[in-house]
Amino acid sequence: MKPGMEKPDTVIRVGKETERVSSMKEPKYWSKEMGCQAAIKFQMSACEQVRVNVIYSLVVACGVVLILAQLFPLRAFDATKWSWPCNEIAKLTVGKNGELGPLSEAILHEKVNTSDIDLSRGELRVFKPHGLAMHLWIEMGAYRGGPREFSIVGLVAKPIETFHEPPYLCEWVLNDGKGAIKGNSSKILPDWNYGKLYTVVVITCTFEQDVGVDREGGELVLHVSYGDKYRQPERITVLTEKQGEYNATMFSPPYPYDYVYCGSSVYGDVSPQRMREWLAYHAYFLGERSHFILHDSGGFHPDVWKVLEPWIKKGRVSVHNIQQQEIYDAYYHNQFLVVNDCLFRSRFMANWTFFFDIDEYLHVPPTTTLEEVLSEDPNVTQITFEQVPISNELCVADNTTADGHARKWTFEKLVYKRVLKRGIRYDRKYVVQARHAWAAGVHMSMNMKKGKNWYPKGDKLRYYHYHDTINRRQELCNTFVAPANKTQVQSHRRHYHRLDDTLSKTTDLVKAYELQTIGTLPFIL
Amino acid sequence: MKPGMEKPDTVIRVGKETERVSSMKEPKYWSKEMGCQAAIKFQMSACEQVRVNVIYSLVVACGVVLILAQLFPLRAFDATKWSWPCNEIAKLTVGKNGELGPLSEAILHEKVNTSDIDLSRGELRVFKPHGLAMHLWIEMGAYRGGPREFSIVGLVAKPIETFHEPPYLCEWVLNDGKGAIKGNSSKILPDWNYGKLYTVVVITCTFEQDVGVDREGGELVLHVSYGDKYRQPERITVLTEKQGEYNATMFSPPYPYDYVYCGSSVYGDVSPQRMREWLAYHAYFLGERSHFILHDSGGFHPDVWKVLEPWIKKGRVSVHNIQQQEIYDAYYHNQFLVVNDCLFRSRFMANWTFFFDIDEYLHVPPTTTLEEVLSEDPNVTQITFEQVPISNELCVADNTTADGHARKWTFEKLVYKRVLKRGIRYDRKYVVQARHAWAAGVHMSMNMKKGKNWYPKGDKLRYYHYHDTINRRQELCNTFVAPANKTQVQSHRRHYHRLDDTLSKTTDLVKAYELQTIGTLPFIL
Repeated sequence: MKPGMEKPDTVIRVGKETERVSSMKEPKYWSKEMGCQAAIKFQMSACEQVRVNVIYSLVVACGVVLILAQLFPLRAFDATKWSWPCNEIAKLTVGKNGELGPLSEAILHEKVNTSDIDLSRGELRVFKPHGLAMHLWIEMGAYRGGPREFSIVGLVAKPIETFHEPPYLCEWVLNDGKGAIKGNSSKILPDWNYGKLYTVVVITCTFEQDVGVDREGGELVLHVSYGDKYRQPERITVLTEKQGEYNATMFSPPYPYDYVYCGSSVYGDVSPQRMREWLAYHAYFLGERSHFILHDSGGFHPDVWKVLEPWIKKGRVSVHNIQQQEIYDAYYHNQFLVVNDCLFRSRFMANWTFFFDIDEYLHVPPTTTLEEVLSEDPNVTQITFEQVPISNELCVADNTTADGHARKWTFEKLVYKRVLKRGIRYDRKYVVQARHAWAAGVHMSMNMKKGKNWYPKGDKLRYYHYHDTINRRQELCNTFVAPANKTQVQSHRRHYHRLDDTLSKTTDLVKAYELQTIGTLPFIL
Repeated sequence: MKPGMEKPDTVIRVGKETERVSSMKEPKYWSKEMGCQAAIKFQMSACEQVRVNVIYSLVVACGVVLILAQLFPLRAFDATKWSWPCNEIAKLTVGKNGELGPLSEAILHEKVNTSDIDLSRGELRVFKPHGLAMHLWIEMGAYRGGPREFSIVGLVAKPIETFHEPPYLCEWVLNDGKGAIKGNSSKILPDWNYGKLYTVVVITCTFEQDVGVDREGGELVLHVSYGDKYRQPERITVLTEKQGEYNATMFSPPYPYDYVYCGSSVYGDVSPQRMREWLAYHAYFLGERSHFILHDSGGFHPDVWKVLEPWIKKGRVSVHNIQQQEIYDAYYHNQFLVVNDCLFRSRFMANWTFFFDIDEYLHVPPTTTLEEVLSEDPNVTQITFEQVPISNELCVADNTTADGHARKWTFEKLVYKRVLKRGIRYDRKYVVQARHAWAAGVHMSMNMKKGKNWYPKGDKLRYYHYHDTINRRQELCNTFVAPANKTQVQSHRRHYHRLDDTLSKTTDLVKAYELQTIGTLPFIL
């Protein structure tokens, strides 16, 4: 209505003016000696209006592309995952007059079905959302468990799981649009309710028929719901099998290894020397047909890598960099998530999978062997074993020099076990036939498919626990027992301790094995 | 190392080849009769390499603009709110070779500081986030409490509050970039830990000096943190005061009303007739200088509006449409959020603010008046009053026709109160001087700034509670007491009941008041 408002669309007017200018055709500008700009200008004008229109079309097309680029950003990367945030906003929020609608902010980043929300009556109150506290689902891994079974490991937003108990659905999508087969999904929450922002979920998908066994390839798709009427489930492709990838023989023995070790999340300022000792000990203890899967949650700094790399090169160790999970706060560097991922990863890698920490050392008395213990009862699929807590300060004041002492290995010099009190339950760790477990825990699997759990006494299989040594980059011994008194019960920090130099006696063997297998390593405390 | 890996950067090579082609300069194509494309092509080639470079520059510039357009989409709408989702993704996720970086999915929708996450070593595990479970903060309202005090009402993601205890910071930003003044913020969580996905937070911002009292205008900004090291706080402008808007006199009496009623969230299939009766009763009871703020959470369907609209037109009732909050699942249609918003809204509207439900009827015995009770002790700033629970089924079988009976009002025909048992605590409701409260509850404010709480016996002020009547769109009476026995104690559904027709006696007065004030209304059960 105001005079100033009546000016026509600027782009169009500029176009017309340019046309007028260019149609003046000033031949005096045309000469071979003129600058390039003039030459191009003349050329444009000399070719009648057609030529001008070509340029205009290019300009307009460029503008359209720019506008489209604004509306559909990042399409090129992965349309299914990236398109909706901006896409949906643009579609749903711009009202009749181009203004942002009242629900615009509500659906920022959300696929919200607002069809039963009636904002037509009353004084409208707008609830503006800000930021993103939690995603619905954090995908870590998905693994085949057989021709018709899969396991999916991830985190779900804890309150969604607690209060909305969302359904999880899985399906197998055949390659080349040949349809999909619905599966049955069952969930396990293995983290004892310890999760904070997120909680660990293991989904087992089973199908009533074999899927993908024709080796034509396909995808396992998980639908995770919000458990409310406003939001549609997220569709997540958790596993993709390429044509010819399915391998029917992998599910049966022989497996590549006898033993796989699944380490928990390692974080903090880890001592390279302690890591080195632990690896050498267990590489020796578990033997050539073992493999160690370690999880780096920020604890493996460059000096630790110096002692890891030789073992990695030998194929004995894999280090999984899981630092990204730190962003998603469930519990304790996501250890419950990590052990479950490793469980499924190791299922058909080895007959047995061990779960314990890098300050813990396995031991089998010389009267038997690890192999013998594990095969004692073929019905046993899980063994949880006792710990021997070792003082991280008490040492014997022997004759070595101070420097010689400092260079002794942890299990060489820490030789006092705490006398356990009755009635107290001490943590156990475990070894499991991973293919028979639905899910893993930190101290045991609570979800075995098949077989017996065995809780043997320490005279079968036990672990020595050197608590609070791995992140202490300094000399450990600070209380010394006179050699003459070393077999006496020692009272230290309100606990009684007894000499137990069982592991100490293996030091020479372990050191020799390390030297022989990977050569010399630096001593970095 | 493999031959296929050695191909140089595609873009550069294409550029060089094009240059080579165009520098061939084929003059045979040049003629006035040739098409424009040929003309332009010649012109490009005829002007040496310089001309070619101009075109290249344009192409490259266009490409850059396109890429920038992808990086800064939707800027035009509201840069502060809309820019970051796609913006951050593009910036952080495109790696050296243009592929998506490993953290790409992690920061989808998130401003994540990943500077201390080192993904350079080990086998990289990617944690892909999907969906949006919860926003960090849902903004409902912010209110001035005086020259240097504000209250902000919103929802925060519950596990963030529970486990990360994020700091909240507020500041007053002066208009026209004249700087900002930091405030002190203190939080109250008024919802008794009932929140599910979200929990209600009331932030009180106080400043050491008066802010905005120069009437120059400004903004109250709240910074809500995630309480972790990965995410930067959200900066939220919760209140904007325009130049000249600040009104110093509003904080002191006289207030526009004597009483404001703050209703809780109303949802479900509400009976228009029951709503009508409640409104008529309280419009009469609280008098002309009262105002009702009702909150529609989906319960006010078109038939309910028929009985609300006459009162709205008279200025006696405001209906706030809060249906959007249903998307954000805290507790019971966000009633704790709503009562707090209404508390601050009513602070300087009236001397007293009432909190009770639309199936509850206030009563003051004829020996006193409401005004007298409320002003009995000037030090009392909050009064919590007792309930009289009324049977929603027991009626007296009087002489009226069946139809006449059905048309009786709730408080007219439901006249049996339950005999209360000793040792059971029955819910109370309350009235408060809102300006003296830091926060509101459903049954009382637990956070009074000043004054005494008074818990009077029912002979001062009480409410009759017609539980489970408001959403029952059918006849209520189903058990009839013979008129001759009506004063006897009635045993019904394992409770004893006594006649209490106190409110019934006011029916005629209320009906007359309604007719006189807004005219006839339809009877819609």
